Amino acid sequence: MTTPKNNTLLRALLRQPVEYTPVWLMRQAGRYLAEYNETRARAGNFLALCKNRDFATEVTMQPLARYPLDAAILFSDILTVPDAMGLGLYFSEGEGPRFERPLREENEIRALKVPDMNTDLRYVMNAVSSIRTALDNQVPLIGFSGSPFTLACYMVEGRGSSDFRQIKTMMYQRPELLHHILDINAQAVTAYLNAQIESGAQVVMIFDTWGGALSHEAYQEFSLRYMEQILSGLKREQDGARIPNVIFTKGGGLWLERIAESGCDAIGLDWTVDIGDARRRVGDKVALQGNIDPLVLFAGPETIKVETEKVLTSYGSGNGHVFNLGHGISQFTPPESVTTLVETVHSFSRQFH
Amino acid sequence: MTTPKNNTLLRALLRQPVEYTPVWLMRQAGRYLAEYNETRARAGNFLALCKNRDFATEVTMQPLARYPLDAAILFSDILTVPDAMGLGLYFSEGEGPRFERPLREENEIRALKVPDMNTDLRYVMNAVSSIRTALDNQVPLIGFSGSPFTLACYMVEGRGSSDFRQIKTMMYQRPELLHHILDINAQAVTAYLNAQIESGAQVVMIFDTWGGALSHEAYQEFSLRYMEQILSGLKREQDGARIPNVIFTKGGGLWLERIAESGCDAIGLDWTVDIGDARRRVGDKVALQGNIDPLVLFAGPETIKVETEKVLTSYGSGNGHVFNLGHGISQFTPPESVTTLVETVHSFSRQFH
Repeated sequence: MTTPKNNTLLRALLRQPVEYTPVWLMRQAGRYLAEYNETRARAGNFLALCKNRDFATEVTMQPLARYPLDAAILFSDILTVPDAMGLGLYFSEGEGPRFERPLREENEIRALKVPDMNTDLRYVMNAVSSIRTALDNQVPLIGFSGSPFTLACYMVEGRGSSDFRQIKTMMYQRPELLHHILDINAQAVTAYLNAQIESGAQVVMIFDTWGGALSHEAYQEFSLRYMEQILSGLKREQDGARIPNVIFTKGGGLWLERIAESGCDAIGLDWTVDIGDARRRVGDKVALQGNIDPLVLFAGPETIKVETEKVLTSYGSGNGHVFNLGHGISQFTPPESVTTLVETVHSFSRQFH
Repeated sequence: MTTPKNNTLLRALLRQPVEYTPVWLMRQAGRYLAEYNETRARAGNFLALCKNRDFATEVTMQPLARYPLDAAILFSDILTVPDAMGLGLYFSEGEGPRFERPLREENEIRALKVPDMNTDLRYVMNAVSSIRTALDNQVPLIGFSGSPFTLACYMVEGRGSSDFRQIKTMMYQRPELLHHILDINAQAVTAYLNAQIESGAQVVMIFDTWGGALSHEAYQEFSLRYMEQILSGLKREQDGARIPNVIFTKGGGLWLERIAESGCDAIGLDWTVDIGDARRRVGDKVALQGNIDPLVLFAGPETIKVETEKVLTSYGSGNGHVFNLGHGISQFTPPESVTTLVETVHSFSRQFH
């Protein structure tokens, strides 16, 4: 058991006492940092960064060198699992992720297999081990995956979508086919996150980017249910240490009571929810991670300070809060804004602990 | 006072008794109808349809000829007001609305003026009168506008956005500038909807397409507040008849209690909310309009029927429900799906009244 020197994040996720509110940022290693762009240029492209352990380690460490963040997060993509299933992940400049071979035909869907973590996804485990070595137990490392439904959206649509017409047509016309994809995805993500834990991830997070596009009822049946399947199969301990987990459904603010019953340790919140209201709704069941609007970082330091303090004050006194943005940091964010945010969280939050 | 022969919609919006639940569909005159595409081809493009009273009347009437809908809605665009302010609305194929001259400079913002309803927006009032004549009092006519915040999004961004970086930068850096735009927009929309009412609109609806992109607090300050300003200036009666209003914030399900206090008669709901929960949350204050996932119309008739019945059953017995989709109908919808939906609403809902 190797507890990080700064284990504030782990304690906050488990609702244990902390001295201040820990903070990390979704997509904290990213294009808003000049050093990231420099490494990416050397690697050639985004996927080459993910697939090479040295590059992945280098960019994971970059935000920690600039800011006193309370966690590192594995540099990777939410879509590594379907890529390993053979769908052919690629990125077209400015248009987000795409798959060369989207899943549309029943025979392709029935042929879908859980990839082998030791071969097809070995590069991710190598990156996890390498980052842990580089971190030298300073702060914990977060591993992650996309949720089964979010993976299925990209797998069926072949890309992001504004209306999710392909996957929803399948959902309403052939629900058993979609359930088949989701079950395979849930099995694969369970194995994937467990392999990350065995390789050194100390927290795991499931990103459900598109669950919020579903109706309240379909969300439970097609997204939450499969995250619950993963949670029930996740390793909760490794080498004597508890491994907390977080689930984050963007646009899921209406469903927090149900998400809190999923068996997760913490819920990620986007910025549309008042975190104080969210806390009252979920009670003592789970920790909360979030939730400032990432666009606040485009304001001046005084406004960043005020808005950060509002989130901390809304959560209020006591355990169970991890500060984060409500979504990934924008590539256009001025890096000095992050300095202001992190300093404010660390200093202003002490009164609440 | 000229009550429509079928005034079920008006009664439902005012929470008065009805014999069945009325139904209309957002974007019911649209590209899923072959006859619409034929008229549009004759007109040349979408804006030419909006700006010519005969074309606007023709397409408004088309869905009523196919389906026994309980309302007509003015064929127009949510962005006519900023177009009349001189920003130059245009549509690039497949990319949604854009403005030639987005608002970025302070001097342009300070120069913004409420357009003249009798000249700049005369074409809309002409369409309203012409449609009323064509309707011959069969069903009521709904007029509408975009909300002040939604108009401002397009005015400042110049187009739709995934992160609203321009307008949120203004919101967090120069809130007084955004408030100025929103105040002018609210004044303009008030005059615009009142002019529609005077020309014959029997219901008015405010579409707040992008309010859901805001934080809970910013939503109140930058979107809801200006819809309240409009509601307080709206004509509530015309020629002795009550003119009900509806406000619809897509993604606003978290904030229904506050929206219900705005002074509106009815709230439009997207499909992420359980309408039964929504009804419990708003109590007797307002009617509710919605809220089936528009993608349900891609299923077979049996599923459409089941899903439609679920929404009606969730709302339950009593007054105050107008059936609608949770968002505009997709251009790829099979027209026969709408037949199934409308028939199901009309027959299955009788038990609740």
